[in-house]
Amino acid sequence: MDIIENLHLDLNLGDILEIVIKIALLIIAYLIVKPIGKKIIKASITKASRRENVSEGRIKTLEKLLLNVYSYTIIFVFIVTLFGIVGLPLGPLLAGAGVLGLAIGFGAQGLVSDIVTGFFILLERQIEVDDYVTTAGYDGIVEEVGLRTTKIRSFDGTLNFVPNRDIQGVSNHSRGIMRALVDIGISYGDDIDHAMRVLQTVCDEFQQDDRFEEGPDVLGVQSFGNSEVILRVLGKTKNMEQWAVERDMRKRIKEAFDHEGIEIPFPHQVHIMKEPK
Amino acid sequence: MDIIENLHLDLNLGDILEIVIKIALLIIAYLIVKPIGKKIIKASITKASRRENVSEGRIKTLEKLLLNVYSYTIIFVFIVTLFGIVGLPLGPLLAGAGVLGLAIGFGAQGLVSDIVTGFFILLERQIEVDDYVTTAGYDGIVEEVGLRTTKIRSFDGTLNFVPNRDIQGVSNHSRGIMRALVDIGISYGDDIDHAMRVLQTVCDEFQQDDRFEEGPDVLGVQSFGNSEVILRVLGKTKNMEQWAVERDMRKRIKEAFDHEGIEIPFPHQVHIMKEPK
Amino acid sequence: MDIIENLHLDLNLGDILEIVIKIALLIIAYLIVKPIGKKIIKASITKASRRENVSEGRIKTLEKLLLNVYSYTIIFVFIVTLFGIVGLPLGPLLAGAGVLGLAIGFGAQGLVSDIVTGFFILLERQIEVDDYVTTAGYDGIVEEVGLRTTKIRSFDGTLNFVPNRDIQGVSNHSRGIMRALVDIGISYGDDIDHAMRVLQTVCDEFQQDDRFEEGPDVLGVQSFGNSEVILRVLGKTKNMEQWAVERDMRKRIKEAFDHEGIEIPFPHQVHIMKEPK
Amino acid sequence: MDIIENLHLDLNLGDILEIVIKIALLIIAYLIVKPIGKKIIKASITKASRRENVSEGRIKTLEKLLLNVYSYTIIFVFIVTLFGIVGLPLGPLLAGAGVLGLAIGFGAQGLVSDIVTGFFILLERQIEVDDYVTTAGYDGIVEEVGLRTTKIRSFDGTLNFVPNRDIQGVSNHSRGIMRALVDIGISYGDDIDHAMRVLQTVCDEFQQDDRFEEGPDVLGVQSFGNSEVILRVLGKTKNMEQWAVERDMRKRIKEAFDHEGIEIPFPHQVHIMKEPK
Amino acid sequence: MDIIENLHLDLNLGDILEIVIKIALLIIAYLIVKPIGKKIIKASITKASRRENVSEGRIKTLEKLLLNVYSYTIIFVFIVTLFGIVGLPLGPLLAGAGVLGLAIGFGAQGLVSDIVTGFFILLERQIEVDDYVTTAGYDGIVEEVGLRTTKIRSFDGTLNFVPNRDIQGVSNHSRGIMRALVDIGISYGDDIDHAMRVLQTVCDEFQQDDRFEEGPDVLGVQSFGNSEVILRVLGKTKNMEQWAVERDMRKRIKEAFDHEGIEIPFPHQVHIMKEPK
Amino acid sequence: MDIIENLHLDLNLGDILEIVIKIALLIIAYLIVKPIGKKIIKASITKASRRENVSEGRIKTLEKLLLNVYSYTIIFVFIVTLFGIVGLPLGPLLAGAGVLGLAIGFGAQGLVSDIVTGFFILLERQIEVDDYVTTAGYDGIVEEVGLRTTKIRSFDGTLNFVPNRDIQGVSNHSRGIMRALVDIGISYGDDIDHAMRVLQTVCDEFQQDDRFEEGPDVLGVQSFGNSEVILRVLGKTKNMEQWAVERDMRKRIKEAFDHEGIEIPFPHQVHIMKEPK
Amino acid sequence: MDIIENLHLDLNLGDILEIVIKIALLIIAYLIVKPIGKKIIKASITKASRRENVSEGRIKTLEKLLLNVYSYTIIFVFIVTLFGIVGLPLGPLLAGAGVLGLAIGFGAQGLVSDIVTGFFILLERQIEVDDYVTTAGYDGIVEEVGLRTTKIRSFDGTLNFVPNRDIQGVSNHSRGIMRALVDIGISYGDDIDHAMRVLQTVCDEFQQDDRFEEGPDVLGVQSFGNSEVILRVLGKTKNMEQWAVERDMRKRIKEAFDHEGIEIPFPHQVHIMKEPK
Repeated sequence: MDIIENLHLDLNLGDILEIVIKIALLIIAYLIVKPIGKKIIKASITKASRRENVSEGRIKTLEKLLLNVYSYTIIFVFIVTLFGIVGLPLGPLLAGAGVLGLAIGFGAQGLVSDIVTGFFILLERQIEVDDYVTTAGYDGIVEEVGLRTTKIRSFDGTLNFVPNRDIQGVSNHSRGIMRALVDIGISYGDDIDHAMRVLQTVCDEFQQDDRFEEGPDVLGVQSFGNSEVILRVLGKTKNMEQWAVERDMRKRIKEAFDHEGIEIPFPHQVHIMKEPK
Repeated sequence: MDIIENLHLDLNLGDILEIVIKIALLIIAYLIVKPIGKKIIKASITKASRRENVSEGRIKTLEKLLLNVYSYTIIFVFIVTLFGIVGLPLGPLLAGAGVLGLAIGFGAQGLVSDIVTGFFILLERQIEVDDYVTTAGYDGIVEEVGLRTTKIRSFDGTLNFVPNRDIQGVSNHSRGIMRALVDIGISYGDDIDHAMRVLQTVCDEFQQDDRFEEGPDVLGVQSFGNSEVILRVLGKTKNMEQWAVERDMRKRIKEAFDHEGIEIPFPHQVHIMKEPK
Repeated sequence: MDIIENLHLDLNLGDILEIVIKIALLIIAYLIVKPIGKKIIKASITKASRRENVSEGRIKTLEKLLLNVYSYTIIFVFIVTLFGIVGLPLGPLLAGAGVLGLAIGFGAQGLVSDIVTGFFILLERQIEVDDYVTTAGYDGIVEEVGLRTTKIRSFDGTLNFVPNRDIQGVSNHSRGIMRALVDIGISYGDDIDHAMRVLQTVCDEFQQDDRFEEGPDVLGVQSFGNSEVILRVLGKTKNMEQWAVERDMRKRIKEAFDHEGIEIPFPHQVHIMKEPK
Repeated sequence: MDIIENLHLDLNLGDILEIVIKIALLIIAYLIVKPIGKKIIKASITKASRRENVSEGRIKTLEKLLLNVYSYTIIFVFIVTLFGIVGLPLGPLLAGAGVLGLAIGFGAQGLVSDIVTGFFILLERQIEVDDYVTTAGYDGIVEEVGLRTTKIRSFDGTLNFVPNRDIQGVSNHSRGIMRALVDIGISYGDDIDHAMRVLQTVCDEFQQDDRFEEGPDVLGVQSFGNSEVILRVLGKTKNMEQWAVERDMRKRIKEAFDHEGIEIPFPHQVHIMKEPK
Repeated sequence: MDIIENLHLDLNLGDILEIVIKIALLIIAYLIVKPIGKKIIKASITKASRRENVSEGRIKTLEKLLLNVYSYTIIFVFIVTLFGIVGLPLGPLLAGAGVLGLAIGFGAQGLVSDIVTGFFILLERQIEVDDYVTTAGYDGIVEEVGLRTTKIRSFDGTLNFVPNRDIQGVSNHSRGIMRALVDIGISYGDDIDHAMRVLQTVCDEFQQDDRFEEGPDVLGVQSFGNSEVILRVLGKTKNMEQWAVERDMRKRIKEAFDHEGIEIPFPHQVHIMKEPK
Repeated sequence: MDIIENLHLDLNLGDILEIVIKIALLIIAYLIVKPIGKKIIKASITKASRRENVSEGRIKTLEKLLLNVYSYTIIFVFIVTLFGIVGLPLGPLLAGAGVLGLAIGFGAQGLVSDIVTGFFILLERQIEVDDYVTTAGYDGIVEEVGLRTTKIRSFDGTLNFVPNRDIQGVSNHSRGIMRALVDIGISYGDDIDHAMRVLQTVCDEFQQDDRFEEGPDVLGVQSFGNSEVILRVLGKTKNMEQWAVERDMRKRIKEAFDHEGIEIPFPHQVHIMKEPK
Repeated sequence: MDIIENLHLDLNLGDILEIVIKIALLIIAYLIVKPIGKKIIKASITKASRRENVSEGRIKTLEKLLLNVYSYTIIFVFIVTLFGIVGLPLGPLLAGAGVLGLAIGFGAQGLVSDIVTGFFILLERQIEVDDYVTTAGYDGIVEEVGLRTTKIRSFDGTLNFVPNRDIQGVSNHSRGIMRALVDIGISYGDDIDHAMRVLQTVCDEFQQDDRFEEGPDVLGVQSFGNSEVILRVLGKTKNMEQWAVERDMRKRIKEAFDHEGIEIPFPHQVHIMKEPK
């Protein structure tokens, strides 16, 4: 607090001028250094990526991360220097265990938590750029994993900024083959064996499809619905192909059922007529 | 606490008069300085924005922010000076690690959290004025990003004041092209291939529409509903055009379906009549 | 704790008498001073509000606030004096870092949080008396913004006392023009173009209504319902006029539809009769 | 902890006898003093309430509160004396900053929070005895506002004990006139103007009813339901009369509608018969 | 920690033998003293309850509580002695402000919270044995209020152990007369006045029933349902008689309505037949 | 931290060899001692359980607990010795009040909380092995109550590991007789008295069943459903017999109703046909 | 903070060169040592698994864990050495009890919590690789249990990274026999005894199936549905066979019911026709 009072007293015009000039020089230096560093990072990454045999996602992740770390570092240096010029000793301010220190400590806690989480996300390769993930209530393609924030692009086009501290568990949908699952209801009056044979014929066709890694196959009677017996078909597909494959299978099953006269039933209801009292 | 007791004892009429005069002078100074500073800031921003090639949103953001920082600074100086005049030493009060200090420290924690979060929102350009965002349960157009509070105007006209600490993740809907998606149900009796051809024809028309950046195209059979087979149409549009485009597509698809005799089915139910027991 | 033991020992009849008299005098002083202060505040506000050109809500807010601050101050002085008379030194009690101090510190934390939040609500003019706001799960017209509590009158007549610390985000519905929105369903069999023309005619009438600031206009096909095609009409109205305007528009649209033979459809269902097995 | 060990060593028969006698005397004193104090408080309140012109609820609140404070004080004195007799120094135990102190400090925090909140509830007159309030998930008539606990009697007869710390916001339904609101649906085929005239006639009758402070009046078309057009009637009534008034209005409206042949419609559904495939 | 290392070094056979013998004696003493204390407590309670005029629930509460406090005390003494024999100084372990102390302090916090809450539940007589209460999500008859835990027997026979700290608000259903409420729907076509007269006749019969403390009476038209006009009947009954009374009233009302030809309506629906397109 | 640096410097080959040998010996000792201890515990329990008259569940609980405590103790000794061999002084590490100590303290807090809760669960006999309990969202038969974790076997075969700290309230379904409750709907047209007589006859049969401890009996008209009058039958059964008993009663009631011609009604609906407009 | 200032001053070209070379050597050492260690671990595990008689899941768990611990250790050593080279003393930084220390302490708290939980998950064998578990809202097959994170593969192919601190309770579905349960509805008109005999015949067939460990058997009338009497069949199967077995049983029961003419009923509704008013 003495700092604040001293601020009012010690300033004279010469000092102020000196400070202004110093700040101007600092800003100029900042504006010159920043883009140069960025270019160096991008160039190094491009060069490095040619030589070594690393996946594209990993390279993008590293490039975004390095640029991110670089900008925070340069801003941090900028601010420390600025405080130095103005004469505010940042160290004691931060280390001072008074009320202000306490408040800042708690405030900064979130920041540390962001960086620690971000560090482990990168170290354990939980997320890489271009992965399709679900985390912290957001769902989409990762555009950048930064030290403090992760950017996720939703499928509707929205760009989500997620503080790393909110990323508690990550569901990464880009790590391996995916399941294609179609549940289809048939009438209680239809022959289950017949319907399962028809479904298996469709499945046999799709087993030739090279988007499938495994199956598909008919599993059996999954449940008894209100108006239909539900049969399940299951297969495993290449990553991100599951939706297209499911759409194709639905269309093909519908056609096969139409051909064989198997009905996908509407909701049924039994009506009993009673005379009014 | 001694402070409070001293307050009662040390005051005599001369002191009080002196204090009153000082306070009056302070208020006058405040009333003079405040508008001048505001005008300077606005003028500088206007001048700067002409020269440099920055987006309008960025300029508005900066102007609102600078005015915001300026008012907090001037009020802070005002209060510190006021406490100085009255003779209450603000420093020891804040630094004192007693019960009061503890309470203030916890209370101030939220304030620090507001400022830290606000700083990173601005630094990482998560939000700019005129962006359409969803955050902290609020949804609308950003009117101001301040140090402590962000103002969001809902589409129904409400102005929401959101403390920055509550802004954990930001969904920014103004960063890139957006998805236009129309799901449409056809009857189980209709020919899926025919319906998809009709939809694709409508899509081909819209591909000429320059509001579209990509598509639209028919994806296929999205799911089996209770009474209808649901087909999906997907495209990408210029930012904020998605709603108008979807509305136009819905109208056009309905007309095409009417023309081709394809029915959008009502809910179906199968009735079985039974005699009362 | 020594204090408590001392209490038991040091009291004799003379002391008690003295204390009782002092307390009586204190209460009398309190009862005399309190109403006088209130009157002075009200008079000053009335006088000030005549001269300066400030909105009525702002004046009410200030008056309520000053009265509020005044009562807390006078009670605070009352209690400090009372403790002084009884001989309990309040300072050491509060500053003592023992178990009691810890407990009080945590307890007082909420109080500080109330005052800090209240201060910023007033400084940033988030709420003023007579505003219609939604905050902390309460919804209604603000009656008073105090240092510790905000009073909100619900539309059903309930008076809600909201501690300021619970006010995290404020939705203020009294800051600008409001949206009037009417969604109306038409039958799948009706001509969409015809219905939109009829709606636009109604909108054109309302554009003359000076409660509207903008529009209203027909937007288009908002969605496909189960039994109806939903059309949307949107306009912007003077603050707090939106509900009356919407009611008038609904009545007028119904009349126009009746006149043109356009049906607002009931839920539809397709029935298929099947013989019992 | 030395205390505990000392306990085991220092006790001999004489000491124990002395302690037992002291405790017996203490209990006798307690049993004599307690009812006397209660009677004095009740008598003073009765006397004071006759002279001064205060509302009955306020007097009940004060009486309950004083009795409440009195019992806690007397129990506190009892316990402190008891500990003194046994030889356990309560002060050091509480002030000791060891593990035990820490645990007690946190435990007591809730107690302090209760008292602080209770103090402000009373000071700001948020709740008085016999008010009908909703707070902390409980709903009913207040029976007592104590230092630590508030007792609320639900309408089903349950007595709820609510710790004051849980009372964050209070909805007090006994502070002013209340809203009486009746929503009534008419058939889509009925004439809206006719129905509104009938409703207004009923409203005009009720405007004579002195339970109404304002209105009631017909507002207009509140919304389009699935099977009915919903009209809204609104008025303001004396406190706690709103339910009886609403019941009377519903009965009267039903009779007026029956007389005028306006139908309150059942849910409607359009059926389309289709041949089974 | 030195303690642990010392443990390994200082033990020789003689010491161990001595310790084992001491522990054996301690266990024997514990097994002898425990049941004797219990019997003394039970006998004293029985004797005391005969002389004084206290409710049975209060006596049970006290007996359970005293037994509870007694067992904790004796176990506490047992453990302290045990630690003393083994040579582990419990005091320093607890008071030591190292990592262990911190962890224990936080762990013990819950225990203190249990005891403090339990103390106030008993002091304020919020709960007594045999009361029917709802608290902390549990619902049933109280079997024991202990220092740390309250035992509640659900109506389905489950015994619930509720830590006192979880008891935030208590809804005690055994403190006063209870409400009996029956809502009954009549057809929109029926005469409301007639139905209310019939209901009132039934109510008049029940007013003779001495389980009723007040009423029952017909209130009026509570609401307009989809297919019925809902009438409300309300009365006040002796504690715990409300369910039986409501069951009897429902049966009696049904019989009276059958006799008078008033119908409790099934859900209604209006059907409009439409030709398929 | 000096520790870490010292680690790098002080190690030479001789030391390493010595440490490796010591560790090997430690592991061998551990592998020999562990199973011996387990056998001794099991044997003692078996012997003790023969002599004394304790319930089987209590014996299982004690055996599992002792084995559990034994394994934690032996692992604790193992780790302390291991750290001693390697030369890392565990004591100072834990007691050091630096950043590491703080972090460990908070981390260990959960562990202490587990043990404290586990201790009271056992002391208050809230849970014993083979009890059927619901706690912390899990539901099943208890397989083990450990110091840190309780194992609950769900009825679907899943084994749930529940940290004791999550066990806040315990619902123990194995402590006393249980309720058997059957709600059964009859038609609005049926005679309530007749149906209740039939139900009572069924109940009388079941009163002979020795699985019942009390009842069953007919209570009366529980509520008016949409399409049925609901009657309630209630009894009390031996523990864990309630489900089988309810199933038997349902079957028997259905048969009795069939015999007497009382109908359990399907949902009813009144249809009113209207001509399309 | 002095550290940071010193950084700026003390660096000269020679120092920088030395540091760069050291870092280069460090990286090379890291790149050489890392894969060697991994191979040694894998080889040892393979060798050890051959000799000893341990389950495959346990071996996989250990291998993954050792690799995991190994990578964290090597990275930890890397970072400590790196800080040593650069001249930043990590120890004081961490131990310093200033604002930074506080922030890091809180941030690291989560890390400690991860490791402590992970340690107990492994020690108590709550989870092993290839187990099917539900925990922290995730559901799937465990791929790795690490010190900090557990990897769970969902059945849809998603890989979930779960921080160990979020694993509060674990439901392990791979520890013992599982329940197969089929609920099947029959018509209210059907003979319950007959249906139960048919079901038991099907069950008897399945009792030969060696996927069953126990049963299956018919339990009885589980409940009265709206339109059907629900019967329950229950058995116990080998782990992970429950779904296939349930599917087979459903198919077989349907066939048996078809053969015996027992109907699985559609929803029923009683219709009463009424004339429009």
